[in-house]
Amino acid sequence: MAVGLNALPVLLPVSGLRLGTVCAGVKKPGRRDLVVMELCEGAATAAVFTRNAFCAAPVTVAKRHLAQHPPRYLLINTGNANAGTGERGVQDALRCCRGLAETVGVAPEQVLPFSTGVIGEPLPVESITRAMPTAYGALSEEGWAEAAHGIMTTDTVAKGVSRQIEIAGQRITVTGIAKGAGMIRPDMATMLAFIATDAEVAPFLLQPLLDAAVQASFNCITVDGDTSTNDACLLIASGRSASPAITAVADPAYTALSQAITEVCIALAQAIVRDGEGATKFITVEVEGGADEEECRRVAYAVAQSPLVKTAFFAGDPNWGRILAAVGRAGIKDLDVARIKVFLDQVCIVQDGGRAPAYTEQQGREVMAREEITVRVDLGRGDQRARVWTCDFTYDYVRINAEYRT
Amino acid sequence: MAVGLNALPVLLPVSGLRLGTVCAGVKKPGRRDLVVMELCEGAATAAVFTRNAFCAAPVTVAKRHLAQHPPRYLLINTGNANAGTGERGVQDALRCCRGLAETVGVAPEQVLPFSTGVIGEPLPVESITRAMPTAYGALSEEGWAEAAHGIMTTDTVAKGVSRQIEIAGQRITVTGIAKGAGMIRPDMATMLAFIATDAEVAPFLLQPLLDAAVQASFNCITVDGDTSTNDACLLIASGRSASPAITAVADPAYTALSQAITEVCIALAQAIVRDGEGATKFITVEVEGGADEEECRRVAYAVAQSPLVKTAFFAGDPNWGRILAAVGRAGIKDLDVARIKVFLDQVCIVQDGGRAPAYTEQQGREVMAREEITVRVDLGRGDQRARVWTCDFTYDYVRINAEYRT
Repeated sequence: MAVGLNALPVLLPVSGLRLGTVCAGVKKPGRRDLVVMELCEGAATAAVFTRNAFCAAPVTVAKRHLAQHPPRYLLINTGNANAGTGERGVQDALRCCRGLAETVGVAPEQVLPFSTGVIGEPLPVESITRAMPTAYGALSEEGWAEAAHGIMTTDTVAKGVSRQIEIAGQRITVTGIAKGAGMIRPDMATMLAFIATDAEVAPFLLQPLLDAAVQASFNCITVDGDTSTNDACLLIASGRSASPAITAVADPAYTALSQAITEVCIALAQAIVRDGEGATKFITVEVEGGADEEECRRVAYAVAQSPLVKTAFFAGDPNWGRILAAVGRAGIKDLDVARIKVFLDQVCIVQDGGRAPAYTEQQGREVMAREEITVRVDLGRGDQRARVWTCDFTYDYVRINAEYRT
Repeated sequence: MAVGLNALPVLLPVSGLRLGTVCAGVKKPGRRDLVVMELCEGAATAAVFTRNAFCAAPVTVAKRHLAQHPPRYLLINTGNANAGTGERGVQDALRCCRGLAETVGVAPEQVLPFSTGVIGEPLPVESITRAMPTAYGALSEEGWAEAAHGIMTTDTVAKGVSRQIEIAGQRITVTGIAKGAGMIRPDMATMLAFIATDAEVAPFLLQPLLDAAVQASFNCITVDGDTSTNDACLLIASGRSASPAITAVADPAYTALSQAITEVCIALAQAIVRDGEGATKFITVEVEGGADEEECRRVAYAVAQSPLVKTAFFAGDPNWGRILAAVGRAGIKDLDVARIKVFLDQVCIVQDGGRAPAYTEQQGREVMAREEITVRVDLGRGDQRARVWTCDFTYDYVRINAEYRT
């Protein structure tokens, strides 16, 4: 059902990273639900986490450990979010870290835990620790595709992508995997993404690299406007490629790598929306002509999150009145509605505060029948822009989210 | 289908107000779609309007006329919102005002126009003006129930309520009618409310009276978070009752009248939610223990507008993780999640950042099976509170809003 998503492409190994995926029986037996990622000595790691005040226990622990040591291992389980579990949840996450640390011979602070799945159930720590030796034994540089499957919850497709660039004649690889199909899945807590490169990057440059990529990708999507308790996105630079170390923003290699990482993040972010709960359409909302980027983002999100706009896309109904009403309620100061233009793909549907004179319903229906559609709003009051990706709002969204927890 | 809404109660006449309702054939023949309200000489009127930047033409004209003259007539049509119609829409609204003004012998500026229905279609001015003499002939103090039907669009029930109070031994009546079943109906633009009293109120006191009532009622509801282009709410005081004029906020009669008007507005606002698109449950979200009212409202709206919370109510699923996640993403600064308590009716489901120790799934399911449910969130950081009413989110919401415009 995912819109325009094909089978998982070939995921290229990243020197210095090994991944092992096993069935630990966290929630159901026989399902790949535990992933261990090993980072070579000297790898640098940057991270962004959910801003939900109710952040899950593993997020709390991962932040704390990240501040103490460069991580050597990531431990990711699905089937249980270890969220809403209070102090016990924190202790459970720490026990898992200690378990893996003992198995592999590092300090517990060198392990970062990640969980996704049902909220509010205690983490089955024994099942997870019991599976660790097998996961450790399964570690392989070729393990990315397995891991992409191993972090899925109710995603309908595994999500991953690789890019390669050349710097100073040396090939650099960027590979990323992600999971998520809504800001929160039914009882699932949601988006995780792990991106790795073999480039050598000065540690202080890694966080801005990741922040820029996330701002242009994962921070531009919405399925239902809900923010998860477990969101996390990591960028790892192993430094194993033969290319020279990147130590300054002014270095052209920085720009090239930044671009590759951003491309990987955009592909993963779009994959999450394309696999959005119940989605039948992939919608790009572009807002241009704004006085600043922030107001463009507000308008774009007002359109992208409107249940009325999203149901109209589901119906293939070129209901421009709803788009117009969403733009109008975005709270933009001194908005001159007479200057606004709205386009569905190339068709101008609104200008001068009303329906464009040349517009016909037939033109609108033709665009709305497409599986991928761009809504473009020109605010006519500046030269700033923003872009948000979303999907339509369907019976299946209600079905998926109204189903009882199983 | 409306939750807990019975047949329209008896609507008491308000001396000084007459209403006439006819079938003008605005959109379909044979449907009551045009209401004329006549206000006696000397009646005072206050109003609040939509804050959507794309406000409809009748809103623009009504605001302008209200600033010029105390209104003598209200002209309300359904079937066409006259929104997104640009300058032509304004001219059409003015033509309707002139038509009624000529029929009844007042200045056009003494007529306020209101429209609700499909966005973006030209207003059928001829049909409306042709029906005016009949509407004028139908004017009656007993016309409230007819008018409550005459302003419906896709509402499933007519909405109205009366209250009486006694001031200085004299009876005062407050009667109100409203329409709306979502912030925006499919192609419909949405909420209208008209409240009238025969009390005599100093004109400068009428707007604060209305503002307070609206703040406690229509500004506390959400069906889908979308704000209409046509919302309007009017309060009329005819001054025809025998009770003494209310001329100061300190007058106990002011408090009594304010209370009665607020009660009427709350009943109408709740009726809109109870008739919300596809609604099967009526949900009250109460947030208490906040540092200020504004943060309580933000949390209440985050819960009330979360598609995930609303689909869980539809399913009767006591999915407290979703409520917790919505509270967490409301953007409250320095929120200490360990202090938060969440209740479903009388059942404590969350405390100390996780599931309440005594809580059982069975208790949650029992509450969730009810048709009317209160979610109470105690933020544990102050003594302020706020309350929002909403409904669940169902297949029928998607069906209603995905249907092609007809």
